[in-house]
Amino acid sequence: MAAREFGDTIILVGDEQRIKAELSKHDTAGLTIEVLHASEIITMEDKPSQVVKGKPDSSMHVGIQLVQSKQADAFVTAGNTGGALGVSMLRQVGLGRIKGVKRPALGVIFPTKERPLLIDNGANADCRPEYLLQFGIMGSLYVERVLGIENPRVALISNGEEEGKGNLLIKEAIPLLSASGLNYVGNIEPKEFMAGAADVAVTDGFTGNIMIKMAEAVASHMSATIRDEMMKGLFSALGGVLARSAFRRVRAQFDSSEVGGAPLLGVNGVVVVAHGRSNAYAIKQAVGQARRIAEQAVVEAIASGLEEVGEP
Amino acid sequence: MAAREFGDTIILVGDEQRIKAELSKHDTAGLTIEVLHASEIITMEDKPSQVVKGKPDSSMHVGIQLVQSKQADAFVTAGNTGGALGVSMLRQVGLGRIKGVKRPALGVIFPTKERPLLIDNGANADCRPEYLLQFGIMGSLYVERVLGIENPRVALISNGEEEGKGNLLIKEAIPLLSASGLNYVGNIEPKEFMAGAADVAVTDGFTGNIMIKMAEAVASHMSATIRDEMMKGLFSALGGVLARSAFRRVRAQFDSSEVGGAPLLGVNGVVVVAHGRSNAYAIKQAVGQARRIAEQAVVEAIASGLEEVGEP
Repeated sequence: MAAREFGDTIILVGDEQRIKAELSKHDTAGLTIEVLHASEIITMEDKPSQVVKGKPDSSMHVGIQLVQSKQADAFVTAGNTGGALGVSMLRQVGLGRIKGVKRPALGVIFPTKERPLLIDNGANADCRPEYLLQFGIMGSLYVERVLGIENPRVALISNGEEEGKGNLLIKEAIPLLSASGLNYVGNIEPKEFMAGAADVAVTDGFTGNIMIKMAEAVASHMSATIRDEMMKGLFSALGGVLARSAFRRVRAQFDSSEVGGAPLLGVNGVVVVAHGRSNAYAIKQAVGQARRIAEQAVVEAIASGLEEVGEP
Repeated sequence: MAAREFGDTIILVGDEQRIKAELSKHDTAGLTIEVLHASEIITMEDKPSQVVKGKPDSSMHVGIQLVQSKQADAFVTAGNTGGALGVSMLRQVGLGRIKGVKRPALGVIFPTKERPLLIDNGANADCRPEYLLQFGIMGSLYVERVLGIENPRVALISNGEEEGKGNLLIKEAIPLLSASGLNYVGNIEPKEFMAGAADVAVTDGFTGNIMIKMAEAVASHMSATIRDEMMKGLFSALGGVLARSAFRRVRAQFDSSEVGGAPLLGVNGVVVVAHGRSNAYAIKQAVGQARRIAEQAVVEAIASGLEEVGEP
């Protein structure tokens, strides 16, 4: 799908035999698809700290090295997020950080109509205020270049909008963002975040990860509860059948496959981490997203954006 | 409703004229309802730091003093949470902390079928590991005594269940909870929290507050989206009408009015903070909850529970 839609060369990295067996089931005539063998696999259970150095011929290593050596423009994975982050950060065989970046971060586009970017979504469980400033800068450049949003509104996620709200991290980040030259619009709560009160919502990776997981848990719990309740009565069951297409549209809206994967911002190359449950369409979207990040030179923009702001 | 159901004396604290005007609209024959005038009002916009000392004759002050002077067994409010916390913590005119409590915390019963308690829900934006230990102890005693759950399962909210996950706060809290004698079952993510994998889920007040607000935001967004989508087609609109009672049951399940308010645990008296949007039924439930906390001597249980565990 991606090779056909974008006309790009797609290099599939992993177990050559399995990839070729799978490819043979599809019509790939006229498409440029290459296969590159990697003998090791980073599983979802592997601990990043162990595999980053312990499995040097994993598909993550081989794929990211393609970007590092400029043989590929971007790397897309639906695998272990910690693994992708760890391998990306390796020097020499990986990509390392963009000069000036203190901590790379995962951005995630939240699947409501307004498509706000939440950053960090789990790369950094513990943050300092200056990391949050950089997340704001990187996120702002990303949505400007990749989503085409001019002068993006940047906010901090907090437990209240009023002055004096927030934990110490947020309170110390506020003056940094205020003075940054970013279009900083203040603190927002989850409700305002979902309503699109900011284009970029900045948070530490622990809070961001909990937010996304909470949203998934509530959405899936509500869907299941509605389904169960529908089954209980004849009229509701009939209603459920009639309303099915409406439900499908709601699910589609909350379906993250539309919006691609999570860009890993701050590493010196393009890396997109798609959801582990991605279907073919979602992976195609993630490839399109990675393509646009490369095309729009987001990595270079981050490098010069950080230089402009300087050390906080 | 509360006076009738519980047979208790209810003391209504606030603007005497307005309370009496409201009371006159109801049939209160045979009920013991007293009115106690308070000349000042803490608004939802007031900053706790200013009003706690600046409005000494607020309904919060007068009501909490009734508990402090043993003229009342419990105080229930649907007002400013920070105000209730601040006034409760005052020495002499307020309640102060239970001996040994480092930080009082707000518990909140999450309105899924399993009714897990999340603590802290916003009283402490910045926490130390030993606070989390105490939240676990207080929460455990609360659900045991008030909800009748034997040997409650206590967990820490984290961004992953695996060892090595969590931020520094969580990592440092794990050994404290493990060694506490509590029925500590490990780290849980939001999904497991909602599924009732623990009876008491411990978190700092910043994360807990964001979790609850995220859940409210997602639930309300999903309801609105489903409603909008239903309106779009004839069949779905008809389906929506037929499924209405199912929707009503789902909303009722997510309706926090069933579960009462948030108990403020760790202060030396019974204080329950109901949601600002509470209806009459929710307030009645909160009164019933406050009643049970007093009856079950939760304050005394926390005092002796903390003494047993000692200083971490």
